[in-house]
Order: sequence, then C-alpha cells, then structure tokens
Amino acid sequence: MNMPLLILTLQKLLGEADLLLDPDDCRPYCKGARYGEGETLAVLRPDSHEQVVEIVRLCQTYHQALLLQGANTGLVAASTPDASGRFFVLSLERLKKHIAIDVVNRSVEVDAGVSLHELNTALEEHGLFFPIDLAANPSIGGMIAANTGGAKLIKYGDVRQNLLGLRAVLMEPAGEVLDLQHALRKNNTGPDLKHLFVGSSGCYGVITRAVLQVHYLPKLTAAALVVPRDQSAVLELLQVLERDCGEYLSAFEGISGAALQAVLRHVPAIKQPFHPEPCPDYCVLIELSSRSDTQAGSDLNALLSGCLEKLFGTVVENAVLGRATELWRIRHAISEAIRHEGKVIAFDIAMPRSALVDFRAQALALIASHYPWIRVMDFGHWADGGCHFNMVWPSDTEQVLSDSVVQEIRDLIYDLVVLGYQGSFSAEHGIGPYNQAYYQRYTPAIQKHLSGQIQDLLDPQKLLGICHFGH
Amino acid sequence: MNMPLLILTLQKLLGEADLLLDPDDCRPYCKGARYGEGETLAVLRPDSHEQVVEIVRLCQTYHQALLLQGANTGLVAASTPDASGRFFVLSLERLKKHIAIDVVNRSVEVDAGVSLHELNTALEEHGLFFPIDLAANPSIGGMIAANTGGAKLIKYGDVRQNLLGLRAVLMEPAGEVLDLQHALRKNNTGPDLKHLFVGSSGCYGVITRAVLQVHYLPKLTAAALVVPRDQSAVLELLQVLERDCGEYLSAFEGISGAALQAVLRHVPAIKQPFHPEPCPDYCVLIELSSRSDTQAGSDLNALLSGCLEKLFGTVVENAVLGRATELWRIRHAISEAIRHEGKVIAFDIAMPRSALVDFRAQALALIASHYPWIRVMDFGHWADGGCHFNMVWPSDTEQVLSDSVVQEIRDLIYDLVVLGYQGSFSAEHGIGPYNQAYYQRYTPAIQKHLSGQIQDLLDPQKLLGICHFGH
Repeated sequence: MNMPLLILTLQKLLGEADLLLDPDDCRPYCKGARYGEGETLAVLRPDSHEQVVEIVRLCQTYHQALLLQGANTGLVAASTPDASGRFFVLSLERLKKHIAIDVVNRSVEVDAGVSLHELNTALEEHGLFFPIDLAANPSIGGMIAANTGGAKLIKYGDVRQNLLGLRAVLMEPAGEVLDLQHALRKNNTGPDLKHLFVGSSGCYGVITRAVLQVHYLPKLTAAALVVPRDQSAVLELLQVLERDCGEYLSAFEGISGAALQAVLRHVPAIKQPFHPEPCPDYCVLIELSSRSDTQAGSDLNALLSGCLEKLFGTVVENAVLGRATELWRIRHAISEAIRHEGKVIAFDIAMPRSALVDFRAQALALIASHYPWIRVMDFGHWADGGCHFNMVWPSDTEQVLSDSVVQEIRDLIYDLVVLGYQGSFSAEHGIGPYNQAYYQRYTPAIQKHLSGQIQDLLDPQKLLGICHFGH
Repeated sequence: MNMPLLILTLQKLLGEADLLLDPDDCRPYCKGARYGEGETLAVLRPDSHEQVVEIVRLCQTYHQALLLQGANTGLVAASTPDASGRFFVLSLERLKKHIAIDVVNRSVEVDAGVSLHELNTALEEHGLFFPIDLAANPSIGGMIAANTGGAKLIKYGDVRQNLLGLRAVLMEPAGEVLDLQHALRKNNTGPDLKHLFVGSSGCYGVITRAVLQVHYLPKLTAAALVVPRDQSAVLELLQVLERDCGEYLSAFEGISGAALQAVLRHVPAIKQPFHPEPCPDYCVLIELSSRSDTQAGSDLNALLSGCLEKLFGTVVENAVLGRATELWRIRHAISEAIRHEGKVIAFDIAMPRSALVDFRAQALALIASHYPWIRVMDFGHWADGGCHFNMVWPSDTEQVLSDSVVQEIRDLIYDLVVLGYQGSFSAEHGIGPYNQAYYQRYTPAIQKHLSGQIQDLLDPQKLLGICHFGH
C-alpha cells in the first residue's frame, strides 16, 4: 500500500485539522469510555456524508481497515482500536449538522454523529424525546450499531423498534450508498435491509443518518421502591402491574440488597429508603409515566399505590412511594458504587422473564460454592428479561483475580444463561472483542455461516470494524 | 429431473392423503382468497418440521420449485401458484401441533400453520392476544412473510415488532435449519437474522415456527366516530389524542364520505350514524382501549368525550360516541360494500402522516381530472400513515376498464406516493407478482443488488417462492 499517498489524499479531503496523525491527538480516540485501549495511526473526522463516501472509497482502494467510532461509550470495545494499530479510526463525532424534526409524524431525521443528549435537547422544545434510557451518552449511529435497549424498553421498545429508516455507506461496492431514509411506519416492499445494520457493530456498513420514531415526553410520573415477599413475588408483582397499570408501566428494575447496600455505603447523600426497617434482601423500582396531564387517569400515584395496597401482605412486604428522580438516583448509583467494593465483573445477560427467578437462585448458588468470597451485586430490567448479574471481587480478599479466573466465571455464568435458560450473553451491549469468543462458542454454525456470508458480501476484504460474524 | 421418483419419494414421506396430485384436489390451493388463480402439479401438506426439512432437501436435489402457502389470504398473489405450473405448492396448513404459551414472559411458541384466530383462541383463556388486527385470518407464517400491520399498529406495532424468534428451513444449504427460537426481548449477539425472513414473501426460507410477544386483552374500550372540521383537522385531532390519550389510543381510522355512503347503501343494517345531520364528507373512527378495568383512569368514555369536547367547534364538527364493536362494523363493511358499486382498484400505500392531507388532495384532483367518472372511496390508518386509497370504476359508466387503464391509474398514484411523498407502494401487503414490477421500478439499484445477493445465497437455484429481489 502507498500509505503516504493515502494520507496525502485524506489530508486534501478532510483538511489537516480533521485528519489526526499525531499520537497525542489520536490518544483520546484509542480509549473506551470505561474499558479498553489500543493504537491507531490516524483518526479521520469527516463532517459530511459525502466525505464518508470518499473515505470508504479510498480505504477500499488502499486496503486500509477502518474502525467506526461514535461517542465510544460502548462496553464491548467494538469502537476502540485494538493493539495492532492496523485500523484508522473513522470518528463520526463531527457528522452532526442535520436534525430535522417532523412533529406531525413524530419522527426525526438525524445525522449519525449526533449524541442522544443533543437529540433530546432538540426534541424537547416540541415536547418530544427519543426514549432509549441509558446511563451513557452515545451517538445515534452507535446506538443503532449496538441496538441499545435501556431501562424503559418495556414501554418504548429498543432502538430497532423505533428505527424508521437509515442511510449507510457500503464498503462493497465501495462507497455505494444504501439510502433507506424512509419516515414510514408501514413499508413492506421487499426485504427490509436496514435491519442488517442494527446490532452489527459497525461491520456491515457506515451509518451516516437515521430516521427515528420519537415519543411525547411524559408529563406525569409515579414511582415506588417495593420490597417483594420473595423472588417469585417479583414476577407476580410484574404481572399484576402489567395488567393493571400496563399502558403506564415504564420501568420495573430489580435491585439486589447487596447492590443497594453498596450504594448506601458509598453515596452518603442517599439514605436507606426503608428506614427504620432494615435494608431489604431485594427491592424493585417501579415507574409509571403518562404523556398526558389532562386525562381522567392522571393520578398515577393513586393508581400505583392502589395496586400496591392490594398486594400488601401477600406479594408486597414493604413499599415507599417517592419522586421518580429520587428513586432513580439509587438505581443509577449502583454501577459506580459497587466499584468501590473491589474489582467488578460485569454481565449483560437476558432470558425469558419466566426464567429469571430460577436463574438467579442457581447462579447465586454456583458463585457461592465456587467463589464464596465473591459478592454478587446484581440488578436487572425484569420486565424485558435483562439482568446485569454483576459481581465484585472484594478488595479485601486474599484470593487473586487473574484473567483466567475471570474467564472461568464468565464461562460458568454464560453456560448457565445460554445453555441452561436459552438466554443471551449480550442483551444490550452488542458484540465486540470482549465477547467475540462467546459469539463463536454459542452461535449455531449455520447462523455464523450466513452472518459471515453477508459480511463477505458487504466487506469481502474485511476492512470494516473489528468483529467477525463467520466461523 | 426424474419426476416420477420425486413423487414416489414424497408419497412415502407424506402419505397419499397429504401429497395431492389430482387436479380437483389441488384446485383450492391454486386460488387466492380474493384475487389470482394458477396451476400446480402437486400440493405437499407436511404436518411436521422434520417433513418440511425433508421436502426442502428433496426439492433442491430434484430442482423442483416450491411455492409456500399458509392460509393463502394475501392480496399480492405471493402464495398462489402462477399459470406456469412449475411450482409444487408447499402448504403449511397442517403444521399446527405446537402452541406453547409462557404467561409470565407474555410470549408464545407457535407452529407456522396455526391461524391468527386459532392462536387467539388459545391465548384468550390466559387473558392474552396477538394484537395484529386484520380482516382476514392468515397463518402465522404468512403474517411473518408479509409483515402484516393492521389497524392497531399505533398501539401494538406490526408483526416484526412482536417477533421474538423463529425457526426457518433453508434451501441453501438444503434443509439446514436456522434455529432462532429465542423468547428474548433483549438479545444483541450479532446480526439478527430473523429479520431477513420478515416481509420477504417466503423467498428466503421456510418458516416453521415463531416465538411471538403477546399482550393482555383490553378490558375496557371507548370509541367515537368524529367529523373533523376539514382534512388538516384530522392531523390536529390525531396529535391532541396522542398527547392526551396516548397510552390508550389503539386506532385512528379515516373514512371518506364516499366509503361511508357505500356502506349505508349496501349494508341496510348499518344506519347513518350522524342522522339527522347529513352524511359527512369525512369522518374518523377513534378507539381507546385499556388492559385494566381497575385503575383510576378506567373511564375511557369520559376521557375520550372530554378530549373531544375541548375540540368542538374548532377541530371537531360533530361526534358520536358508541360501542367499539358497532363502530368497527362500519369500518369493516367498507371493502365489501364498495365492491357493489363497480370494479374496485385497491391501493395499500403509506407515507409520513404529515404528508397525508396533501397527498389526498392531490390524488383526488388527479383522479378527478384524468378519470372524472371514478369514485374514490378511500379509508386509512392515519396514525401509522397507511392509506387504502381505493377507487371504484362504477358499474354504470360507459367507459371501459382495461388492464392498461388499471396500469395507468396505478402508475399515476404510485408515482405520486413514492416520488412525490417518499411513501410506500405496499404498506402492509408485501411483495408478490401483483407488485413485483413496482418493486423493480421504485427500489434503488443498490438495494435490489443486495437483496438479490442475499436471495442468491439462500436460494441460488431460485426454487423458493415467486418473487425476485435482484435486478
């Protein structure tokens, strides 16, 4: 490859300010928000779709691999270059000129580099929002590539379910544009190719624009932190709430006692919500929300407390109603708080919700028998079957945590989830180098065969992204 | 090909009763529920997934083309054999042994040959249903192959949005089974291949089983037939209702005055709902529904009438509240009633809802200027942008309706929808021989290229189905 000529051509295309070559300038693009660090020789920062087309064409001609990066907030290292240095980072962070809101259609055309917060700021003045509720602030392109779900999936769906259209630049034929920018809720005119790009970790094409369905902002919210009788009562509670508050139910988040205690230990501003009762073994954060404040059913607090009262003494042992923002602070504090306890081994798994009770009991027992010093501090989106079965290797243990032990623990839990409960080893984080081996292990051969064939069609030289979907 | 040997082998596999060879026995499988008729030499009626696998293997070996058929209720002839006689019909109607409901997960595993009514009957005792609201009674496999939407998409989504998993038998490698029978709401472990089979008209593989998300049956319903001030008031009304009754809004169906009048003329049991006022130029059927009958907001009639009252004199000119079943009778009578008026030229189009008013005005003017004798009797799902812009070539006109005139009219309307309003020429009926030419015409070259390449991967000999997605 004639690298100097490629660099020169890219410099002409992007200008010197947006083709980063100095290692110091490149470094921020080589480090994931939470995990992972690698190397790159160049960071490309186009600010237009046309520049992306040209970059893809050039890189195919020169056989130069590209790693796509939005806000680099992902947790599986799919947008962080590896140590090989073989990738140029194609950062979409400057591709954010276009946000066109169609209020009547409840949809928005948005450039891939726009962040979730930026999008929601633009939508807010119309009383609208994009309802994927995440702790991070990813780019829209990254959200599609990972198909993020978040804490409110049960009411609003995931990214895929709110994706009306997109535009993608293909590596093969190089620089061809697949323009599927429909703002349509019904459109069945052959295979719907946009779904290829959802959850494919930036390996099937470069998304430059999306058309999203958006929703009215909630005007009323009610929330409670509830102590269930026991684990099976969590599922009973979910069923009653889905029936009786179903249209309003926007979150149903389980929080283990260990996770709650970690929050109380490390975030002094948060007080034990059930005081003077002791900290419970398990509790559930319930949120109802309504986009209307004018309707007959607007008293969501009365609705929620009415439902809970009926369950008191049977399904529900204790409950505090509170402001949603206050209660969510507890839930959102978990990830950070448990890191104060030691080294976190995080999981992003899902299964049929009917399996959650059995899985949790079995997984807790497994960990207790194999690694009695580990503290499981899990929390989960029970309504969509998602579970962050996170655990802490305590700072004060004498046991040594090596990579191979982490590997053993992952194998143990993933085997149980996937083989034992027909669950998912990556519910909402997608596939990246951190779980590529599990993709190979758990994906049926014919599925890998077909996903790999499609990758061969779209990128025969494997120049795009860091994941391999074939065998 | 050694046809006698293939027949003999299939007879051994299926038994004589389920390999139909007598033309009289085959005839019912050669005629669509509403349109289309063709020829076949054989109808294969497997009752198990394993038989389907064997059939696909055999037919690939013998280069015998297969046309998949569920309940054959589609409207684009995708499941009706053509006149060539080259297809064996692979009927999935007997593949209906398995319906396994997981109440806690709100999901069901169901064989592809089960009909929508059968599925809903099984779900009903658990207070659940599959909420795709259609006039026909298709098979579940057919619903996935067409990605049916229906009248309540705005509340429940389409088939795709409720499809958790599926199992498909592939033509290439012959008889290989892609088993994606997850009952998961969150699962991002690489490209989600099930979406390839949604809306691909039975040409990418044979779906033998699906895993569907199901919903609680509504317990309360309120409905009204509303006369808007004018066309733009329809969109204003929609926006107010989405804000103020949003969680409950389950249908928002526009009905043209001409369609309503046809119903009143031909269905004597239905009375003019606005009497003594004259029949309106346009009206909207609004439905709210709630899965709960115990909540504070349970009085949906009060909620709906409260909303409408505030709009009276500005957005709303007249309204009658009524029982939902009564008002839906009017809506459901349209398709049949307008056929009494002459030859129907039916459309299944969609566009951004913000475009509906302008489109409708322009399309009405176009038809009036080119074909002043045609009576447009349209109705539409405004909330999802869908529009059945149906028109009647009256029985009493002297003008002759030829195939080429139908073609001219289709070209006129589709050009306006697709080129003028970035809309869809097939919103919920999918692709079949009836609109294959429009697929060729309106689909961008690169999209056809890629869809065709995927078809080549999955069926290199073009043995499966009647649609071509390539150039």
